[in-house]
Amino acid sequence: MTGGRFIAVEGVDGSGKSGVVRALIAALASRGHAVLGTREPGGTPQGEALRGLLLAGADEAWEPRAELLLMTAARVQHVARVVQPAVAAGTIVVSDRYAGSTLAYQGAGRGMDERLIRGLHATMVDDLWPDLTLVLDLDPAIGLARSKRRLAADQIDEGRFEALDLTFHQRIRASFLAQAAAAPARHAVIDAGGTPAAVQDAAIAAVTPFLPVDPT
Amino acid sequence: MTGGRFIAVEGVDGSGKSGVVRALIAALASRGHAVLGTREPGGTPQGEALRGLLLAGADEAWEPRAELLLMTAARVQHVARVVQPAVAAGTIVVSDRYAGSTLAYQGAGRGMDERLIRGLHATMVDDLWPDLTLVLDLDPAIGLARSKRRLAADQIDEGRFEALDLTFHQRIRASFLAQAAAAPARHAVIDAGGTPAAVQDAAIAAVTPFLPVDPT
Repeated sequence: MTGGRFIAVEGVDGSGKSGVVRALIAALASRGHAVLGTREPGGTPQGEALRGLLLAGADEAWEPRAELLLMTAARVQHVARVVQPAVAAGTIVVSDRYAGSTLAYQGAGRGMDERLIRGLHATMVDDLWPDLTLVLDLDPAIGLARSKRRLAADQIDEGRFEALDLTFHQRIRASFLAQAAAAPARHAVIDAGGTPAAVQDAAIAAVTPFLPVDPT
Repeated sequence: MTGGRFIAVEGVDGSGKSGVVRALIAALASRGHAVLGTREPGGTPQGEALRGLLLAGADEAWEPRAELLLMTAARVQHVARVVQPAVAAGTIVVSDRYAGSTLAYQGAGRGMDERLIRGLHATMVDDLWPDLTLVLDLDPAIGLARSKRRLAADQIDEGRFEALDLTFHQRIRASFLAQAAAAPARHAVIDAGGTPAAVQDAAIAAVTPFLPVDPT
């Protein structure tokens, strides 16, 4: 049995993460890998319940520290019950968001001390980082425009998006790029400004060197 | 305006905490104090939602670390939005459980490192401890028998109680006593083996020296 891998897909809202996750799953499965797609916050029944609590309320429903704790609680469940068992069984786990989003949104976005976030990650998740984090890099003005079109099409309340201004999302983007620059061996930055097909092809190409020997 | 106070009531299951909280509220209100009764986990809409998630699932639904994070998240909300504003406004806040229960249940009970719990409390709740913590001390065998009678009368599933054996609850009791011994200036240990009226009278007597000057 070849070992599994843990791959995370990060990026600003509207950068195409879920499409990339789907494309990676399809491409890896077609090569004979066991693949599991998952997401954060969520990925377990308990984590999905926390996701519901986090997204349901108004933007100021949670204290920033409480939000950080809930994100981390969902991650503890996700890592212990989904990610680690699957990777140990030889599966390629592809997660739509992971701890990089916590550094970006709670840290750079909401202004919490990054050392606090990293310390919590170290003690609660044993400092587990993905083998590879794909950063889908996009001007957040473009991403937000895409998100708003999608939200309008889905008739979803876009209040949470409207409430956060563009400078917030620019800090998110800068955080993802800084994270990648600080640990280049386990990050790949993908230009997410192209067509979905081009972005997805670039993501598949970036992941390929990180995979176990092709099982087919 | 006299300053407020923060009082917590702790003890093993069945030690009479909720009755003591009600008696304290009645006694303090009758003396003219502004009093607020609250509880943990809970005390805010968000914290009550977390309480529901924590208590609804099976005993092994949450990883111990996730449980600790959720307890702390509920506490962050409770302290920031209820306890601190009320105390600042001169109110006597009486909470059914607080961080002492986290040290007892997640620490001594479930075996998590107490330093981890205290570290999280320091960073996330700015190490806020009540002016006085009442420890209702009782042989947990007696407390569990009381709890089971109450659960049976209320037709509540007692699975969560049955699943935890007596030695677990003995560790909880020992933790509360150790916490009181380590910080005697802000703890009072009450013998909870007497009648409810006797325990409640002892609680009121223990609280009285900690109150602001009687406003009546």
